Amino acid sequence: MSHVTISPDKARKLIRENKLTRNTSGISSGHVQANLVVVKKELAFDFFLFAQRNPKACPILEVTEVGSYIPTLVAPSADIRTDISKYQVFKNGELTDEPENLINYWEDDMVAFLLGCSYSFENALVENGIPMRHIAKGFGAPAYITNIPCEKAGIFSGPVIVTMRPVLAKDVTKVVSITSQFPLAHGAPISVGSPESIGIKDLNKPDVGQLIELKANEVPVFWACGITPQYVAMNVKPELMITHYPGHMFITDLKDRDIKTII
Amino acid sequence: MSHVTISPDKARKLIRENKLTRNTSGISSGHVQANLVVVKKELAFDFFLFAQRNPKACPILEVTEVGSYIPTLVAPSADIRTDISKYQVFKNGELTDEPENLINYWEDDMVAFLLGCSYSFENALVENGIPMRHIAKGFGAPAYITNIPCEKAGIFSGPVIVTMRPVLAKDVTKVVSITSQFPLAHGAPISVGSPESIGIKDLNKPDVGQLIELKANEVPVFWACGITPQYVAMNVKPELMITHYPGHMFITDLKDRDIKTII
Repeated sequence: MSHVTISPDKARKLIRENKLTRNTSGISSGHVQANLVVVKKELAFDFFLFAQRNPKACPILEVTEVGSYIPTLVAPSADIRTDISKYQVFKNGELTDEPENLINYWEDDMVAFLLGCSYSFENALVENGIPMRHIAKGFGAPAYITNIPCEKAGIFSGPVIVTMRPVLAKDVTKVVSITSQFPLAHGAPISVGSPESIGIKDLNKPDVGQLIELKANEVPVFWACGITPQYVAMNVKPELMITHYPGHMFITDLKDRDIKTII
Repeated sequence: MSHVTISPDKARKLIRENKLTRNTSGISSGHVQANLVVVKKELAFDFFLFAQRNPKACPILEVTEVGSYIPTLVAPSADIRTDISKYQVFKNGELTDEPENLINYWEDDMVAFLLGCSYSFENALVENGIPMRHIAKGFGAPAYITNIPCEKAGIFSGPVIVTMRPVLAKDVTKVVSITSQFPLAHGAPISVGSPESIGIKDLNKPDVGQLIELKANEVPVFWACGITPQYVAMNVKPELMITHYPGHMFITDLKDRDIKTII
């Protein structure tokens, strides 16, 4: 069975059993995927506040109860500790481990944050005839560190990280309109057409990921990115923060249409 | 100078000096007003989670840093302890005091939650030709306890409280459309036309406030209400929870248009 059409529950089971270890792009297509951030209780309020104040970079899909690794609202059959294929562990701002599960890391005062991911709006863009060249090439959109500061909260601060997608000038309004309908998947672009204005010196040198070059009549469009918390972790050096490995997301039971704004 | 047109900063100053003590309906018209909930740090994460899981009843405008009574994002010149004319103090679920300020109550581990209020969408409705009879009569919309449970979070649970506004049948779609644009002011109705279906036995007997009778061709329309946390406090009996006195809201610097969804 193709991984594109399997249910989120089946996909998570394969991931849990280490039978599906690639990045999750396209898996259980049409379902919402999520970025993960785990912190201990003493930092949980501050990180919650950080996410609430920075909804473009950190749109909150679910926050677990203290100690719970079960996201009861978006995937009640899941286990946060095992259902992502690869994690990143940051201790005092240093990436110290990339484990395949969190069984040895989980403690009963941990809190998990599931934050929306751009796959939902990318699906909607592709369905509406807007090509996403990075998906066709099998990798993620290139990401850049900006000069836009996140709203601080407690110890948490740092720049907003953005992804860039080239869009034909004639399609920019359509792309803004479609992505605006997905506020829980980073929503509308935070900047359009001027890398310099957000502190990006050279569009040809992404800070993360592979370059997607602009073609004739294309404009670079920038969205807040869910790897912002990883950069925040490196910036403020909390004793412990655990995240998913970029591209290896948590697959929820929600469908993309469930998080679409209806007005 | 009319209280309708004074700036939020001036209105808060008058309130702070006990020179403006009435309910805040219509004051600094066009600015966003807010419900207040204050809890101590040990409950702050759970109440944050409760609000995040119940965005219709508890739409989050701002959460302060631990110990801070200054809402730096929505009213940086304000003081949460003094800038509401009347508060309610709940100890172990009992209403024990209705002080004019929180100077004697504030502690350095308290967190304040400012939650959106229906005044913003009511302004938009009136501007669009939908009459609000309760405003003309000088009181708040009648409120009812429903059989709809809030999503639980930590110790916090209880029924959703709703307000009811009579709407001409021909205007229901317009009212849904307009209020949908204000998700931070309770947003779209949670139920239309059937009090029984949400556990309201007698529409003529509101649980809070004065009755507004339905006229010919009017349908009762129900919105989640910001007094839900007061009922939650009475339900789960936290050691301490402080709120505004109903109708005596916190006036922010935000304009209604600032919280309007644009798509």
